[in-house]
Amino acid sequence: MSNKLKIGLFGFGCVGSGLYEVLNQSNLLNASIEKIVVKDRDKHRSLAKDRFSFEKETVLDDSAINLVVELIDDAEAAFEIVTEAFRRGKNVVSANKKLIAEHLDELLALSEECGVSFLYEAAVCGSIPVIRNLEEYYNNDSLASIKGICNGTSNYVLTRLNNELKSFDEVLADAQAIGFAESDPTLDIDGFDSKYKLQILLLHTFGLKTVPQNVLNIGVRHVKAEDILFAKEKGLRLKLISYAKKVEDEIVAFAAPMFVKDDSFAFEVNNEFNAVEIEGLFADKQVFVGKGAGSFPTASAVLSDVSALQYNYKYEYRKLGSNSSSLADDFVFKVFVSSKNAESLSLINFIQVEEEFSSSNYSYKVGLIKSSSINYELYRNQPDLFIAAFEDAEIELIKKEKQQVESLEV
Amino acid sequence: MSNKLKIGLFGFGCVGSGLYEVLNQSNLLNASIEKIVVKDRDKHRSLAKDRFSFEKETVLDDSAINLVVELIDDAEAAFEIVTEAFRRGKNVVSANKKLIAEHLDELLALSEECGVSFLYEAAVCGSIPVIRNLEEYYNNDSLASIKGICNGTSNYVLTRLNNELKSFDEVLADAQAIGFAESDPTLDIDGFDSKYKLQILLLHTFGLKTVPQNVLNIGVRHVKAEDILFAKEKGLRLKLISYAKKVEDEIVAFAAPMFVKDDSFAFEVNNEFNAVEIEGLFADKQVFVGKGAGSFPTASAVLSDVSALQYNYKYEYRKLGSNSSSLADDFVFKVFVSSKNAESLSLINFIQVEEEFSSSNYSYKVGLIKSSSINYELYRNQPDLFIAAFEDAEIELIKKEKQQVESLEV
Repeated sequence: MSNKLKIGLFGFGCVGSGLYEVLNQSNLLNASIEKIVVKDRDKHRSLAKDRFSFEKETVLDDSAINLVVELIDDAEAAFEIVTEAFRRGKNVVSANKKLIAEHLDELLALSEECGVSFLYEAAVCGSIPVIRNLEEYYNNDSLASIKGICNGTSNYVLTRLNNELKSFDEVLADAQAIGFAESDPTLDIDGFDSKYKLQILLLHTFGLKTVPQNVLNIGVRHVKAEDILFAKEKGLRLKLISYAKKVEDEIVAFAAPMFVKDDSFAFEVNNEFNAVEIEGLFADKQVFVGKGAGSFPTASAVLSDVSALQYNYKYEYRKLGSNSSSLADDFVFKVFVSSKNAESLSLINFIQVEEEFSSSNYSYKVGLIKSSSINYELYRNQPDLFIAAFEDAEIELIKKEKQQVESLEV
Repeated sequence: MSNKLKIGLFGFGCVGSGLYEVLNQSNLLNASIEKIVVKDRDKHRSLAKDRFSFEKETVLDDSAINLVVELIDDAEAAFEIVTEAFRRGKNVVSANKKLIAEHLDELLALSEECGVSFLYEAAVCGSIPVIRNLEEYYNNDSLASIKGICNGTSNYVLTRLNNELKSFDEVLADAQAIGFAESDPTLDIDGFDSKYKLQILLLHTFGLKTVPQNVLNIGVRHVKAEDILFAKEKGLRLKLISYAKKVEDEIVAFAAPMFVKDDSFAFEVNNEFNAVEIEGLFADKQVFVGKGAGSFPTASAVLSDVSALQYNYKYEYRKLGSNSSSLADDFVFKVFVSSKNAESLSLINFIQVEEEFSSSNYSYKVGLIKSSSINYELYRNQPDLFIAAFEDAEIELIKKEKQQVESLEV
């Protein structure tokens, strides 16, 4: 009943080598790594040199290999490998959230067309089985929201900032020194990684296909010690949240720093831990907590996908089409904006200001803005502005286009 | 591809009526409740009288009904219904942990023999999909331990005791008044419910079949305000834990009050919430938190089983047989025993005492005992003794019988 899996592995970094070890130690699986393809010919690795190949064709041309496990960093190179594997009739397991978020539509269509299975549990929250649960378990309960701390690096930095009141740059440098942050931390720190994972969650939670350009992400890079103090004074904590909520018949979704209260799923999720909260219409709130990164936790998620393929498992995407919700393109929500310089705050167009503070070297405003009035470029170009939302605040849709269309029709 | 499910429902209490409502509101399911069987002819219910039958044959004899959902309290009556349903070729979904824990072997054998599916996600931790994850997701990672707060009633009582320092009897009476505890609270308060759920977890975590008599349970009924203070002074909290851990090649398992530290999965799980921590060899620790009881959360778990049956889902029990571990029948572990009366403490045979306190009206000892030196009868007959273990303490196996066998063989 179970299929012998012959694996072609791309990438032998942290997760790839973890998978190799885990697979060798776990005796429950009818699977073997036949070939390993890596990019760098000279890098020292834990296995003998003759175990490695350097051309993707070594695996793709080998008709005995029925499963490609793709664990490389480069999303564009991964796209070529994965799509070619599909065309050769090979199933694919991937941990590459950027690849998936950027090519969602093509990858789904092509894997379907080629009749292969494409699994990617490890791409979202490492060892937490969130996609499998959304696919298999929460396939009948209408879901109201999904929120996640999906990025371990930014959560580690925010936790240290909360505990030590050091500067962002100091803590980031520490995180880089111990391998908790990349030398180029943009993906993690500026909310891209959180957004890619959110896009995958949107697909499996609400049956919603999105492209990165249409989902707002802002990051934690501009957080100041005073912002952390603001949170502490109010009993709140700052977390980078991948956030999606059904509001009326649309889905509001963004990745951004948020102030969370002590009764939030996120409040006690610290350091490199990840967590996801799924709110169902009937099941109420469920929280899953686990390690979101690291060699073995991520490899373990890859292994679960490999294991599922022994029994021909495929994502069914049952929510695609069955759900009529679309992504909200504009909405009003409550934000906190701070700057060392009071004038910078005027860059943000507040509909309503609830709270305002200014001093010679630190100012902030709290109030309602339109989501369309901020974007990643604004965030990126104003290193002095820190922008955060509030997890428990109301969100109101702006149905401008629809209203225009309706008035045109009249 | 999906089967039309025609449901015969047994029981229309909290969960049964919740299921009825949830099923009617959820439009994703190809399922309908055809007949409902209840016991009490005169009870007022939310549906018209003619929707109910009172004889189990009404459902069992109806060959159009292909799914029995069993949601009654009485485990023996449930056993008759469920086994007869199996024999008639009907799939069964049940939330009855006592039924399953007491008849594990028979139910598994008979459902297998009859070629039907028997699902019971709602029997353990309500809305938390723990069984499905153990079956499907953690089927390849060798698991090291599983620990759960599986009983909402006792957790509610312990949370209140922790916050208010009232007496156990006062808080229990409050819990009964608001429907969080049964008029006969024995199953919840004395650890039976936690044990039944633990037995189900043992099956799906370690492939271990057990009978209730072989798994130790002690409860929280004898907890005193001083015990709560003891915990508070040390920064600990008391939780009723369903506990199973692999120690060498055996599985140590029991349901008992435990002192947990602030880094435990259980520390912040309060009131009626449930939580399960699964520790894998590779995936590290995963925690699932959600509501363990209540009409809709439990109905939602039942609904997920119903939904899975649309696609002919069965538990595969892949760990049965593949795992050579057996239940440890004796082990040394660290306990806390307290009494109003210092002499009562002599009823417990300590191998080693680490800490000792006595005064005229409260005394306790902390130290190592053999698990075989305590049992439910001792707990039940000594209302003055409170016994609790420590979540993070070492456990050592006593391999007496094996040593004897070996020495006989020599």
